[in-house]
Amino acid sequence: MSKLKFQPVKGTRDFYPEDMAFRNWLFGKMREVSKKFGYQEYEGPILEPLELYAAKSGEELVKKQTFVLTDRGGRKLALRPEMTPTLARMVAQREAELPKPIRWFSIGPRFRYEQPQKGRLREFYQWDIDILGSEAPEADAEIIAVACEFLKSIGLISKEVKIKVNDRSLMEQKLSLIEVPKGKIQEVFKAVDKKEKMAEEEWDKWLKEIGLTSLQVKDLKGILKDRDFSRESEKLTRIFSTLSDLGVSDFVEFDPNVVRGLDYYTGIVFEARDVKSKFRAILGGGRYDNLVEVVGGPKIAGTGFAAGDVVIEEVLKEYKKTPKISFCPTRVLVTVFTEGFFRKSLEVATLLRRSNIETELYPDPASQLDKQLKYASQKEIPYVVILGPEEAESGKVTLKNMATGKQKTISINEVGRVIL
Amino acid sequence: MSKLKFQPVKGTRDFYPEDMAFRNWLFGKMREVSKKFGYQEYEGPILEPLELYAAKSGEELVKKQTFVLTDRGGRKLALRPEMTPTLARMVAQREAELPKPIRWFSIGPRFRYEQPQKGRLREFYQWDIDILGSEAPEADAEIIAVACEFLKSIGLISKEVKIKVNDRSLMEQKLSLIEVPKGKIQEVFKAVDKKEKMAEEEWDKWLKEIGLTSLQVKDLKGILKDRDFSRESEKLTRIFSTLSDLGVSDFVEFDPNVVRGLDYYTGIVFEARDVKSKFRAILGGGRYDNLVEVVGGPKIAGTGFAAGDVVIEEVLKEYKKTPKISFCPTRVLVTVFTEGFFRKSLEVATLLRRSNIETELYPDPASQLDKQLKYASQKEIPYVVILGPEEAESGKVTLKNMATGKQKTISINEVGRVIL
Repeated sequence: MSKLKFQPVKGTRDFYPEDMAFRNWLFGKMREVSKKFGYQEYEGPILEPLELYAAKSGEELVKKQTFVLTDRGGRKLALRPEMTPTLARMVAQREAELPKPIRWFSIGPRFRYEQPQKGRLREFYQWDIDILGSEAPEADAEIIAVACEFLKSIGLISKEVKIKVNDRSLMEQKLSLIEVPKGKIQEVFKAVDKKEKMAEEEWDKWLKEIGLTSLQVKDLKGILKDRDFSRESEKLTRIFSTLSDLGVSDFVEFDPNVVRGLDYYTGIVFEARDVKSKFRAILGGGRYDNLVEVVGGPKIAGTGFAAGDVVIEEVLKEYKKTPKISFCPTRVLVTVFTEGFFRKSLEVATLLRRSNIETELYPDPASQLDKQLKYASQKEIPYVVILGPEEAESGKVTLKNMATGKQKTISINEVGRVIL
Repeated sequence: MSKLKFQPVKGTRDFYPEDMAFRNWLFGKMREVSKKFGYQEYEGPILEPLELYAAKSGEELVKKQTFVLTDRGGRKLALRPEMTPTLARMVAQREAELPKPIRWFSIGPRFRYEQPQKGRLREFYQWDIDILGSEAPEADAEIIAVACEFLKSIGLISKEVKIKVNDRSLMEQKLSLIEVPKGKIQEVFKAVDKKEKMAEEEWDKWLKEIGLTSLQVKDLKGILKDRDFSRESEKLTRIFSTLSDLGVSDFVEFDPNVVRGLDYYTGIVFEARDVKSKFRAILGGGRYDNLVEVVGGPKIAGTGFAAGDVVIEEVLKEYKKTPKISFCPTRVLVTVFTEGFFRKSLEVATLLRRSNIETELYPDPASQLDKQLKYASQKEIPYVVILGPEEAESGKVTLKNMATGKQKTISINEVGRVIL
């Protein structure tokens, strides 16, 4: 075939029916778990004012990774790179009338101008789930439990993925103890967030540029290796205890290396990773107690996470957990024997649809029966109805089971019973 | 409340849970009808190369109404204003391996830079459904029947909405008969498409600018008033006959005024309108036998339509057909009696979720019971579980029906039976 005239844009995807079936399965699992915990679905615009992100999302996301367009009125618009600022804006807008706690989730497209690679695309989908209006660590625990239940529901087990939890305020205390000045803490968090992706030497250099001494760098590394100080945080203690009551403690662990990259997190942060650390975070989130206020609303505490579809797909492949999903909804193909039988076939197809059977009619009255049967077999349609002169005379149809090849002549009313 | 810092972008929407529930209901109906006829779901990128639309969508859509952005590599990208060019591109890409006929549908966001008004937004959703690989008028008839079944499924009747069908090639013949030169026909179609929105005088002037004489304008008006010449088209005759067999003829009628605005239509065109013509088209489509070829594939015939969510919502409101949809998934709220009972409540909530009951737990262990009950009633949660000292001692829970106010103390295992 000659080279195609139009290629899809780099970092975007075409979802052919088999891809879409996987996506629908995945989104279905996200919806199911969200609803099981009583979360309501919402959605916001894909186009948002650029300044909404400038407010708090962090410089990297806004300046380097956001798709920006200028509308014909000269306003700068962003293709939303993440959902939380939209959520905060929507909550701020109707704060007075929304019963608290607000338990909301959303699934939709996000856009980031990054170099496409394994697990990372420019146009991707995320599930966001949040609880607003509660400062209790039990709310964080619930959100983390939702994440665990989701991972279980897609077939992943705690030997394959772990949710690593940390508390930014605990880390701040630790950094104070090694005398990192308050003004440098955000910068140090940024460095901790990138540590895994950098050579040690390079990372040390960065910390020294921030202003840390060699001793402080050494102490910081000591803190990051320690897995044992979570009980110094009352919040973490309550969270791990609640998660144990929720029956998901095998999925969670304390990890001081997790601080997350977004600037708006104020306390608990967490992310799910494959245990081999082969992929980016499967999901990540945390507590953001100031964001609603920052976008112009009252102060409402919030906690939640986002899970991207691209990494999840990769992780499922890695652990051979990708489900086999049928992507043809059709239960039966009604064939057209010859042109003269088209009307009769049409009638049968209509009757079957009225009995709630997903039915395709072969649309070309002049096609050969062979070609029609081949079509059914290519599309893996389980049953075929044949309606020729004999059947027409007896008022019956021949129903062929495509898997076994067996066929029998029955009345139209019986078709539903056999197929369903 | 003070003015909010961030407003949503003009022409976009925030979908709060009640709005999202309507959207999910509507998309659910679209999916249901599509699958009933054996169509497979697909989806494409939201970002496409701008030139994909330049190919055939028509100047107005591309030059005036498309949101364009330049990526950091200098390429011009469009936020897709419609789906058919993406569909054609995807089919062209995998033509050899796709069994024909291809029956596909998709539901997703589209973007058009138009002046927002009743029934028209800049960011909206469309359902696209198409059949490719068949030139038979019976394929057009099926697509129109899908449209009728959809309208029925959302509660509209043939006294409220009609699908107006026409054949562009029949219109070409008619225009030839009044000696409109071939080269002017597309321009005349454009004028016919806009006729309804213009003053008669203004419209006459436009036609004269195109080059029509006063007599030709008069004759054209005669053609457009005539509802009786559809039998001159063999295609239309076969379509109306098939639609009658499909049991939907009350929804369809011939209308020479319908030519549709997109340049790629080659034959049958149709649109659904409210009978009062108060709104724009509810859905519109037609046959495009050259589009796959234009985007670089082989010649594959296609026919289909798109239905936008904004007009549908308006039409349902007009005819008082908007359904009342519950938008809180929660079946039961488990309250927390006092802090000491939190763990017990958590256990009950977890048990209920394991029995597939959508369960919310009040997340603040320190909240008053009154406040929790008020929350349940505001959110219209049907049942509340109360678990205090008496219940804990007897190993039971009190289940309160929020609609009747009645409550009884039962064992946890019985809760599911009462609620479901």
